[in-house]
Amino acid sequence: MLYEITVLQFGKMLKNLGNILNKADLYAQAKKIDVEVLLNFRLFPDQFNLIKQVQIACDTAKLGVSRLTGKEAPSHQDQEKTLEELQARIQSVLAYLGTFSDNDFQGAEERKVSQPRWEGKYLMGKEFAIQHAIPNLYFHVTTAYSILRHNGVEIGKKDYLGEMPFKK
Amino acid sequence: MLYEITVLQFGKMLKNLGNILNKADLYAQAKKIDVEVLLNFRLFPDQFNLIKQVQIACDTAKLGVSRLTGKEAPSHQDQEKTLEELQARIQSVLAYLGTFSDNDFQGAEERKVSQPRWEGKYLMGKEFAIQHAIPNLYFHVTTAYSILRHNGVEIGKKDYLGEMPFKK
Repeated sequence: MLYEITVLQFGKMLKNLGNILNKADLYAQAKKIDVEVLLNFRLFPDQFNLIKQVQIACDTAKLGVSRLTGKEAPSHQDQEKTLEELQARIQSVLAYLGTFSDNDFQGAEERKVSQPRWEGKYLMGKEFAIQHAIPNLYFHVTTAYSILRHNGVEIGKKDYLGEMPFKK
Repeated sequence: MLYEITVLQFGKMLKNLGNILNKADLYAQAKKIDVEVLLNFRLFPDQFNLIKQVQIACDTAKLGVSRLTGKEAPSHQDQEKTLEELQARIQSVLAYLGTFSDNDFQGAEERKVSQPRWEGKYLMGKEFAIQHAIPNLYFHVTTAYSILRHNGVEIGKKDYLGEMPFKK
């Protein structure tokens, strides 16, 4: 199930985030606001701005999956300043996620996962996915959403969740 | 894995949310603010306020797990007005989550899950957990967090994520 709760669902959420950013762009145009005002907005002075929230959402998806599987991730320089550049970054991570299959996750639950800032400590892959990567991914997507919601962009839960595979 | 990504992790996140609310309470006391000002705050006029975010986070955990397993959930009346009442609601859901074990999730992935507003449509249990319950749970916990962060409560990612089961 790790493949589905990380690769597939992270990809879905990044697509949703891209759609939400497009709605922010349309809103900015309609209100004659420079969209970069929104991109640089934050809810409190020491919070990361919207650009950084999108960058971290992308990195959480990319690095989370890379650490679970050992498959090298593309590097990004955190230099995005425009909406187009942010969308390109999302697309780049979606392309990377698209290279995975369920097979890449064999043994991932028991893989020891660490990050530079953890100073040698590690989590088991399953713990890392469930308690770290997944909550972080949703945190940054929701925070990006909240920044835009606070600024009046007309987005709702459906934009966040995306399409559901409903059956009748 | 459904038990771990729902029951265990939802419980952890609700505990983290309770701790975050306690920090909001201390902040309100220190600033001589009525904590109910924070509880009734929202980031935009048509957004749910903090009380409702906590109520929905509780319901997402409770009803998500109930629908996946068929085990009846306790009912709550959405009448909380104070911090103590919200904490009691969180505790009530934690007690309910505490009645589950991995065994309750046998067959849950293939269970047909519906909600009243879906008008007869359904998702498979695994889809419901991954694409609906989990993203919703994190959405409302993060939104509660963002409302408090916007009001200056000194909380950070560690408060949101909670303790990690690090190994050396």
